[in-house]
Amino acid sequence: MSESGRSPNPQRWLMGVDIGGTTIVTQLVDAGLRPVQELTVATDVSSPDRTLASIASAIERTLEAAGVPVEALAAIGLGVPGQVDPVQGISRIAVNLHWIDYPVGERLTAIFGAPCFLENDVRVATLGVYRFDNPEACQNLVYVSMGTGVAAGVILEGKLLRGRNGLAGEVGHWIVDPNGLPCNCGARGCLETLVSATAVVRQARAAVESGADTVLAAAAPLTAKAVYEAAAAGDLTASVIVNRVGAELGRALRNVIMAYDAEAIVLGGGPTRAGARYLAPILTEWQRQQETSPLARAMLRPAMLRIADPARNMGAWGAVALVAQQTTLAT
Amino acid sequence: MSESGRSPNPQRWLMGVDIGGTTIVTQLVDAGLRPVQELTVATDVSSPDRTLASIASAIERTLEAAGVPVEALAAIGLGVPGQVDPVQGISRIAVNLHWIDYPVGERLTAIFGAPCFLENDVRVATLGVYRFDNPEACQNLVYVSMGTGVAAGVILEGKLLRGRNGLAGEVGHWIVDPNGLPCNCGARGCLETLVSATAVVRQARAAVESGADTVLAAAAPLTAKAVYEAAAAGDLTASVIVNRVGAELGRALRNVIMAYDAEAIVLGGGPTRAGARYLAPILTEWQRQQETSPLARAMLRPAMLRIADPARNMGAWGAVALVAQQTTLAT
Repeated sequence: MSESGRSPNPQRWLMGVDIGGTTIVTQLVDAGLRPVQELTVATDVSSPDRTLASIASAIERTLEAAGVPVEALAAIGLGVPGQVDPVQGISRIAVNLHWIDYPVGERLTAIFGAPCFLENDVRVATLGVYRFDNPEACQNLVYVSMGTGVAAGVILEGKLLRGRNGLAGEVGHWIVDPNGLPCNCGARGCLETLVSATAVVRQARAAVESGADTVLAAAAPLTAKAVYEAAAAGDLTASVIVNRVGAELGRALRNVIMAYDAEAIVLGGGPTRAGARYLAPILTEWQRQQETSPLARAMLRPAMLRIADPARNMGAWGAVALVAQQTTLAT
Repeated sequence: MSESGRSPNPQRWLMGVDIGGTTIVTQLVDAGLRPVQELTVATDVSSPDRTLASIASAIERTLEAAGVPVEALAAIGLGVPGQVDPVQGISRIAVNLHWIDYPVGERLTAIFGAPCFLENDVRVATLGVYRFDNPEACQNLVYVSMGTGVAAGVILEGKLLRGRNGLAGEVGHWIVDPNGLPCNCGARGCLETLVSATAVVRQARAAVESGADTVLAAAAPLTAKAVYEAAAAGDLTASVIVNRVGAELGRALRNVIMAYDAEAIVLGGGPTRAGARYLAPILTEWQRQQETSPLARAMLRPAMLRIADPARNMGAWGAVALVAQQTTLAT
């Protein structure tokens, strides 16, 4: 940590990268973490090395567009959709990228000559919320990502929880209904089979296919957001789905709060773009609990629940937060 | 933290105290944390101050029995059955002791002239397991206490989780069955209504009252341990209860593991005195999940589940661990 003998380092640009199975989103920032350039490109998942090449290309193109030379890149942060070893810089299992024990950190460092820090994408997005979407500087915060799956990132006392395998917060695989639908994980009735974006769409599709009189029959594409909008417009079929999912989520988020004693729950992902309409049925379930329970009145405060800032890509900005945190420690 | 001007401190005895609604258990240890004297006395809960007097008397009698002068007491650790403010030394809410915002730390320090550290009793017991019942020096550990209620203490990366209100780990109030029985917290179907010692006894009593042909009809007293013993002896009614509770617990502990990514789950409290008989139906549920789920095979390993050492009072020893941790920091 000694500074002696070092010349002042002119390399002050940081790159955050969110790696998804479909797109890669970059965010280049300056030393003050101000946005300089962002870019979204398609992910080539046809082979593990081509996925890496997509990422390298996205980084290069972002630097080019900003007129920043590669030598000026101080560090790279990455959010990886899977289990990672952040110390070794290895992506352990990222199913959608076909990466098994893939040394992504080492590879990118070899290309760009800059240190590379990685973490699971939901945990990275949680760092993004903590650093860039946290006006009250809350130190006990849970981010819950609602997508194909459901997962939580947990910050307690200002520190990201990892657990033994970096899987702390896998609340999408909480078994909620032992006799429920099969989950991708092989169990039955996991939370994500009931409340994920995929689950909302599946319930809507089933209603349409069973001949329900609903505007969802004409929705193209049939998304979770469309279901929330139809419910808000008074569609009965959509309302039934939205209320059922909201009650389930209200209970699940109570359980999240009991597990971590968090002071803020921040929701993100596709269906949350419905905004207040997304929160309403969750709050209805909390209100129902509060009618009989002092504990629910003490622990479940509507003000603690909100949706992540939709104007910011939390994956890419979280990768910026990750790398900023690490480079602050390093310099 | 400066040591200048201090004379070497000859006071090296530490006192751990577990405060229950029925009994107070003390554990006096020497500087090497070796047991010197222990004592169990009844708790006088007839008023907040009498509860404190019970504790003070228990400490005095323990010192007397060991022939240790009060001046030689370096510090006191306390496990309090409720919500505490460990920084201020205040017991916020301890319903069974009738303590509301009671300054227990200040009071005991005034009596004994020694610093006093307190924490919630389940979290204290968790520290006890972590320090004194942890042969593999596991750093990610969850202790689950099965009693009148159910609660967990969580240690991740060697550090006790507290959360915002010191309530992290309140898994007993996870809603598991939204249409289930009313819980003391005012909600319905909380985990503890299904799997606590009280819940096991309630299910057994209901079976007896409905006229079931079971040895439990003659059990006096009818305890959770008796139900597990009857099941092991082949009693059908007891087996049905034990298997139902075990399946529920197997799912709940899966959910605990998904929440914290712990590497060890340690169970304690009355019903766990049934030993391997207590664990068997939990492991059966895990095995059932593993038949279809790679995630369950990866995350739920039988070796990670065990019962806390019944030979050690984890509450009192945990209070020793708490105070040892604090005084190590202070000296």
